[in-house]
Amino acid sequence: MRLLFKFYNYYLSPDKELARKLKPLLGYTPANLGIFKLAFSHKSTSNSGDKAYPMQNNERLEYLGDAVLGTIVAEYLFKKYPDSNEGFLTKMRSKLVKRKSLNRIGDKMELELLLSEYNTTRLSRSMLGNAVEALVGAVYLDRGYASTKIFVINHMLRKYVNIHELERLDDNYKSQLLEWCQKSGKNVTYKLLARYKFEKRDRFKVAVMINNKRVATADDFNKKSAEQMASEKAMIALGILIEEEDED
Amino acid sequence: MRLLFKFYNYYLSPDKELARKLKPLLGYTPANLGIFKLAFSHKSTSNSGDKAYPMQNNERLEYLGDAVLGTIVAEYLFKKYPDSNEGFLTKMRSKLVKRKSLNRIGDKMELELLLSEYNTTRLSRSMLGNAVEALVGAVYLDRGYASTKIFVINHMLRKYVNIHELERLDDNYKSQLLEWCQKSGKNVTYKLLARYKFEKRDRFKVAVMINNKRVATADDFNKKSAEQMASEKAMIALGILIEEEDED
Repeated sequence: MRLLFKFYNYYLSPDKELARKLKPLLGYTPANLGIFKLAFSHKSTSNSGDKAYPMQNNERLEYLGDAVLGTIVAEYLFKKYPDSNEGFLTKMRSKLVKRKSLNRIGDKMELELLLSEYNTTRLSRSMLGNAVEALVGAVYLDRGYASTKIFVINHMLRKYVNIHELERLDDNYKSQLLEWCQKSGKNVTYKLLARYKFEKRDRFKVAVMINNKRVATADDFNKKSAEQMASEKAMIALGILIEEEDED
Repeated sequence: MRLLFKFYNYYLSPDKELARKLKPLLGYTPANLGIFKLAFSHKSTSNSGDKAYPMQNNERLEYLGDAVLGTIVAEYLFKKYPDSNEGFLTKMRSKLVKRKSLNRIGDKMELELLLSEYNTTRLSRSMLGNAVEALVGAVYLDRGYASTKIFVINHMLRKYVNIHELERLDDNYKSQLLEWCQKSGKNVTYKLLARYKFEKRDRFKVAVMINNKRVATADDFNKKSAEQMASEKAMIALGILIEEEDED
């Protein structure tokens, strides 16, 4: 039955173009194309979509995919580093699944080609990372945990993530900036510029002040991570960190 | 082969007592008892444990179990609430897997009986929640995802979690306290008392001040959640919230 669906999807379906684009991405032809269309439908685009998923967009799939991806990555690291402690594993996991890494993976997977097909709004970089999560959620619903694990490990992690580079990556920009300022005899402080609601959640805007001059600002749902982002921007602005190619 | 292991574990193994205690808890007799012994071995207890897991304790299993449990709960809610948005699902998930809920589940599962067997230190309430996570990690390594899902849903969620009560639960104590203070014409502020390192991580101690008087304090790795905990304690101290039976 599944085989029949796949055959239909690949050769006959009105969505056969989607099936053909997904195949090299996933390593297989999906049985349930509707769920993949949903994965690429941002909430800003009105719901002209599939009748089987009324009033829905990719946010529920993102929520599911975020969890599934987190577990697959957690297990992958657990097995890859049999002698490492839980602190190291947790750090590696958060480096791997953080917004920026997912945006980069989505970029390398060229998900914008699929996103532009199902959305009328301008694509933002963070939509790429969200689409990665939604895609993982869709694969999970289409095929279950074991197949999703194969997809994530073979078609995402091994292809697009340099794990040894991640081991060396120090992404605590706040402590790096602090150290640099101490060495250079400069004074660094963080200032909360605003706290506001965004999509019903608290969001924080913070600034990095060096010798009382505002050097960079950043926004996030979490004050600590807004400070990290602002510190990274400040380091780039000061020329002590080279900008990565995928800044949002 | 697995059957043979189970038979041995239940009837012949020197650890047959463990196997017999685990069976009603898990719904099956484990094939790999070593991993379950590890799940109940806190790092404070020296490593007299199984040779197959040298220099290890339950922390790695907690890390793995935390992820697996998060995904199982995410999917359970995804399917239970087909029309709810991702914001509601995320909130429900965090209510379900937060430290306090896990401690309560571990308590109801009577995990202290197993913990006391493999540890020489005094048991704390948070060790119960950690043991729940480690147990999920152990089941996952022993049986894989599908069986773990059955275990978590049938032997934890359906038995010990009142999902409808959780729907109604408003665990934003900070906003509740703020509202109460506004109504009573009192002034509420939060004060960071200390920021220190604990197990290599930043930890925050905050106080709730009402009309400049310290009403309650709390510690956590995250300032926001320390404020929530302190607010809850303050509400209990003020008599506007009834203490739950399982305060640590």
